Amino acid sequence: MQIICRQTDLMNSINIVSKAVPVKSTMPILTCISITATPVGIRLTATDTELGIETMLIGSVTEPGTIALDAKIFQDIVRKLPDGDVTLTTDSNYQAVITCEKSKFDIAGRPTDEFPALPEVVKDSEIRISQFTMREMIRQTIFSIAASDNNKLMTGEFLEVTGNRMRLISLDGHRISIRKILLDEDYGNFSAVIPGKTLSELSKILSAELKDEMHISFSKKYVSFEFDGTLMTSRLIEGEYYKVDQMLSNDYETKLVVNRRQLMDSIDRAQLLIRENEKKPVILNIKDDSMNIRAMTSLGSLNEDIEVEKSGVDILIGFNPRLLMDAIRVIDNEELNIYLFNPKAPCFIRDDEDSYLYLILPVNFNASDY
Amino acid sequence: MQIICRQTDLMNSINIVSKAVPVKSTMPILTCISITATPVGIRLTATDTELGIETMLIGSVTEPGTIALDAKIFQDIVRKLPDGDVTLTTDSNYQAVITCEKSKFDIAGRPTDEFPALPEVVKDSEIRISQFTMREMIRQTIFSIAASDNNKLMTGEFLEVTGNRMRLISLDGHRISIRKILLDEDYGNFSAVIPGKTLSELSKILSAELKDEMHISFSKKYVSFEFDGTLMTSRLIEGEYYKVDQMLSNDYETKLVVNRRQLMDSIDRAQLLIRENEKKPVILNIKDDSMNIRAMTSLGSLNEDIEVEKSGVDILIGFNPRLLMDAIRVIDNEELNIYLFNPKAPCFIRDDEDSYLYLILPVNFNASDY
Repeated sequence: MQIICRQTDLMNSINIVSKAVPVKSTMPILTCISITATPVGIRLTATDTELGIETMLIGSVTEPGTIALDAKIFQDIVRKLPDGDVTLTTDSNYQAVITCEKSKFDIAGRPTDEFPALPEVVKDSEIRISQFTMREMIRQTIFSIAASDNNKLMTGEFLEVTGNRMRLISLDGHRISIRKILLDEDYGNFSAVIPGKTLSELSKILSAELKDEMHISFSKKYVSFEFDGTLMTSRLIEGEYYKVDQMLSNDYETKLVVNRRQLMDSIDRAQLLIRENEKKPVILNIKDDSMNIRAMTSLGSLNEDIEVEKSGVDILIGFNPRLLMDAIRVIDNEELNIYLFNPKAPCFIRDDEDSYLYLILPVNFNASDY
Repeated sequence: MQIICRQTDLMNSINIVSKAVPVKSTMPILTCISITATPVGIRLTATDTELGIETMLIGSVTEPGTIALDAKIFQDIVRKLPDGDVTLTTDSNYQAVITCEKSKFDIAGRPTDEFPALPEVVKDSEIRISQFTMREMIRQTIFSIAASDNNKLMTGEFLEVTGNRMRLISLDGHRISIRKILLDEDYGNFSAVIPGKTLSELSKILSAELKDEMHISFSKKYVSFEFDGTLMTSRLIEGEYYKVDQMLSNDYETKLVVNRRQLMDSIDRAQLLIRENEKKPVILNIKDDSMNIRAMTSLGSLNEDIEVEKSGVDILIGFNPRLLMDAIRVIDNEELNIYLFNPKAPCFIRDDEDSYLYLILPVNFNASDY
């Protein structure tokens, strides 16, 4: 095999597929990037068997062939090469020679026979969406998936299409995050639970340009994302997702309009004193048009006031400050609408269009301490 | 005690003195910053008993007094306060209240009785030097002190004043780094071994402006650095430093003039393949006007050529690439002069004025392998 391509193009392609390379694996071939050069083009592929990515590399093929190269070494080498033309040549013993200007690297490769093929996704349904929008929706919900594998469904996100409405939903038992957008046309009704890791890696390689589009295709067991010469295919999480809409409510006893930046800074300061293992809450005491924010821990106490616009009754309620922060951090609006019911009921942060909705459970505390 | 100061000034002063706070200590008082407010000013102090820093804080004293506050919590809190006036008030139970705009933190402090006083340095000798110059000299030599305490003298740097010449020297058994500057006047002859940690922390708080000066004072057992309202005092390392000049030589068999950037990039690529524990060298094969750079390890091999300007004989020599990199990285010149004698003798990288000199020992290797 012999191919010639630009160092920047090669680097870019390696960076894309390396998102699917497992950190470690009992199958050495999976720690490799597979390169296939044919007269129609050069394809780089990597997979951890759950998630696979392939991307086309711009370059010329002098001699067709295939090789699998250790992803880490290959990436390290290409990163350090000068910005020029790179020639990759392999021989029948799977030795690879990478040359660029006056540098010449020799590394051992592997045959690609054992390299697992990515599954063919038979498209049951497909949508078109802006890459930037998808990236933002992931960023704004991914933080509330569950970290532990105890409940497999919670480690994924629920992608739901209803006509021309798409929602991305995550929950972890303490909170729910929902982002909603309108699609460009009616795509019918379907849904899938996509692994959190897949979405997280996907968001790293999506474009930041609103105008760049992508296609998302679904089959019974797989989802695939297609954009800019890249195809990412992932197994879905099986099972029936939670009936989230049953947990939501439009009723409230107290509605607050509060400056996002001020609230974020206050909770940030409260977090200074609150160590995760102490499980101490941040207490919000809403009275008239003021929110008093308090934290009291072994390190000391914080007490501060911020102005709010309140409708409804006064309320004293406690939260894990991290859960509040996670949600507030990813909202772009300058003002937040917060809906409260009582100190034991979840709080809702949402806009009037329900383009986002964050449900957060409060924590119990001994009111006489505050 | 009550003081009022700007958040930015307080943050800046805390950042300076916190460089002397030990990461952990069996004496809880040492993890604190001591604050002393008198009618003449506000002083912050921290010490790990080897190294002490005190700095003056701009602000007004409403009520004189002293308090010691946990450095980490105090720093965290002040960092998160808005950029406004901060009031610090303490009561007779050493409770401290920190207020800024609508935020109010309560934390427990300690009396300053047990806080160790910084030693008074009786100045035997003193020099004046630009802060930027001192910072650069430290950066350009600190990497070759020894990390381990096995040989205490090697964990420090040798500061030597001879008339109007000052040198800063470090060595670790594999290499020597020397930087030399001329001072503004003749200060006599003296020298001291300053702990590496002291110099490293000092370089972090020195100004980047050439025009900002500092005074360095020496006594038998201490050194002190005075600049911009800050006084840093450190114990010296006792003992007689190595006779470095006896290890240097002006003889050579081969002199190379080489482009610094090219050599750095080549060694950088060789380092990709060379794992520290494999102890494989990078091999330089200098023949006529070309330097061939090779590395051969279990990961693969690298082979590349760079042009050099050579006087003297051809030579084949091997180095630990990290030692070469450490020195080349901190040299600002575009071209390097490298002096070689034979494959077992140290190489010297230096300029014509000896404003810098780096000695690096070669490593043995089996020439037939390359």
